[in-house]
Amino acid sequence: MADGFIVPPSLGIAGDRETAEKILSQIWGKRGVFTCTVANTLTSAIPGVSDAGDTPELTLFTPAADAELLVLGRTVCMKGIPINPGGIPTPATLTQAALNLSGMQYHIINAGCKVVPNIPCYDVGGTYGEAITCGHAVPDARKLYERGVELGEIFSRDEDYLIISESCAGGTTTAMAVMMAMGVMTENLVSSSSPKNPKELKSRLVAEALKAAGTEIGGLADDPLKAVECVGDPMIAVNAGMIVGASKNVPVIVGGGTQMAAVMAVAAKMDPSCVGKFMQGTTRWLVNDPNSDIVKIMHDIDPGIPIVYVNMDYSKSPYEGLQAYEWGYIKEGVGCGGTSVGAIISSAGKVDCDTLLDEVHRLYKGILGITE
Amino acid sequence: MADGFIVPPSLGIAGDRETAEKILSQIWGKRGVFTCTVANTLTSAIPGVSDAGDTPELTLFTPAADAELLVLGRTVCMKGIPINPGGIPTPATLTQAALNLSGMQYHIINAGCKVVPNIPCYDVGGTYGEAITCGHAVPDARKLYERGVELGEIFSRDEDYLIISESCAGGTTTAMAVMMAMGVMTENLVSSSSPKNPKELKSRLVAEALKAAGTEIGGLADDPLKAVECVGDPMIAVNAGMIVGASKNVPVIVGGGTQMAAVMAVAAKMDPSCVGKFMQGTTRWLVNDPNSDIVKIMHDIDPGIPIVYVNMDYSKSPYEGLQAYEWGYIKEGVGCGGTSVGAIISSAGKVDCDTLLDEVHRLYKGILGITE
Repeated sequence: MADGFIVPPSLGIAGDRETAEKILSQIWGKRGVFTCTVANTLTSAIPGVSDAGDTPELTLFTPAADAELLVLGRTVCMKGIPINPGGIPTPATLTQAALNLSGMQYHIINAGCKVVPNIPCYDVGGTYGEAITCGHAVPDARKLYERGVELGEIFSRDEDYLIISESCAGGTTTAMAVMMAMGVMTENLVSSSSPKNPKELKSRLVAEALKAAGTEIGGLADDPLKAVECVGDPMIAVNAGMIVGASKNVPVIVGGGTQMAAVMAVAAKMDPSCVGKFMQGTTRWLVNDPNSDIVKIMHDIDPGIPIVYVNMDYSKSPYEGLQAYEWGYIKEGVGCGGTSVGAIISSAGKVDCDTLLDEVHRLYKGILGITE
Repeated sequence: MADGFIVPPSLGIAGDRETAEKILSQIWGKRGVFTCTVANTLTSAIPGVSDAGDTPELTLFTPAADAELLVLGRTVCMKGIPINPGGIPTPATLTQAALNLSGMQYHIINAGCKVVPNIPCYDVGGTYGEAITCGHAVPDARKLYERGVELGEIFSRDEDYLIISESCAGGTTTAMAVMMAMGVMTENLVSSSSPKNPKELKSRLVAEALKAAGTEIGGLADDPLKAVECVGDPMIAVNAGMIVGASKNVPVIVGGGTQMAAVMAVAAKMDPSCVGKFMQGTTRWLVNDPNSDIVKIMHDIDPGIPIVYVNMDYSKSPYEGLQAYEWGYIKEGVGCGGTSVGAIISSAGKVDCDTLLDEVHRLYKGILGITE
């Protein structure tokens, strides 16, 4: 079947093309469910680390605000919608567009928030993560992972595929720390929601975190949950479990960028048999990011994990806030790539980049109306 | 379509047959999702009120244990499975059987538990209910109702129908209090998990509760959420919202007995437009109960709400614990009637009372093995 499958122009593939086409042909035109796992790590409140919020403190509100925006169409925990400095809208606008066009069911999972969303959420008994520089950021990582496995089993029942994703500001730094502790990353290749990726700061914080945890690069190669416990965030533990729990039953689309790379690294180490049953679903913006290298990151984790990305292009958008995505801002988050890939898959290609862009414009006009 | 629809022998209908057949023909052979809303009310710990647990204190563990049993296939919060005095198993065994045969996806919602299940649950920010005799049992009833509406919207997206249900020991007493405060019930017609329905005690407690709330029979006819706030439990508020939120999109099967009657009374009063879009899904044991009158209860709430029940019969079962259902024990709970009706509907009749009984026996043997 994979042989006869033609990838539509709205999608691109990087890495293991055979596995990507096998999964795509398996779920093409089928029904999926979307989940977004939100969490806080106090790492995001370290000045300079995260641009996912107007100030370091506001980055702690971004996950809850993204979740409220998806479920209610508006935010409750803060005024307006999460923006980067300069008024660039959260990637959740693309996520919303994809969910509207696909009609897919979706659920928010609270892996551990300091600012809890004002909506019904799946609860796993988690608490927010500490700054990784303390060296013991997620004390209950194993319990969160096990709850994640149960969630993966729950959401893969009576479904054709599952999309998982994240909203966790500061997450590229925790992801880098986990991947370095595991030794699957040895240099700073992670992305940033800003084109001015604060690489030196991130590298310094990660080095500090590994030292505080009493380990080094590759020091926790055989204990991925220990790596999450020491220098990760709650989102990584829960989502890694979801991959393992769900991929036993259905294919999984791992929606997101370098943050989700750490999730896939942990899942692949915890249960190598899941490799081949999931793929990363992301955006052209991330794959083409000159300041990060998701293709190398994923190849180093496991060459058997393909990347499928949506060819969204905001360069022709009349809105500067959206054009900024072409200048290197945001690029990914809140499963915007994964849901877009999912909407194209479930609609068997009826949804494409043009219809997605039209819906993003419709939503963005509404947002401007609200925040004006 | 309803004209041509033939109700299979595994199902029975009471009340508005036309609406029942309309809904049945609409979702026959279609895909549904099951939810069970668990909560505690300290009312169950009043000695003599509830038999849903070996002792008054253990009744507080029953909802969490039922939820763990459904999701994990075993209990964590207590040893063995929830039983009534005499070793009669929780109705969750029938619920499990129906879920196994239907393959339906299912989710647990924690409306407010003192004993929280050790599994991933949907959280609505609720806390356990106080004993209704205090007159202010559920302070956040409106918030819980609104979260319920959101949950109903979430679970009705991309589904053909929704089944809601409950596990809340002591719930027939809180249900009676709410229905009396609303004036839809003027005499004690509610059921009990014991054939020795402690009617006098329940009536006395309800009278005490109404007095403590400064109201009387029918005193809160126009304010159903106030009735829940004063003398109800958290489950009623959340599930009533779910009916209102989901029935806008898809038909709803309200799985349960007299406890769910209060839920339907609140929903029908909050949004009369939902009547005609949901039906009660229950068991032959409840409909035939000589110590309660669900048909009159539902007729008094609204003649437009039909009852569809599964004709399960444990009289030929070799197990006394199951035969006891025929002697008036348990009768309903944990959505056993609603999931059975749903399994028959989604399988277009391939699942019937015989296949359900075989699966119950298979599970019950396992339980005996575990608890021996």
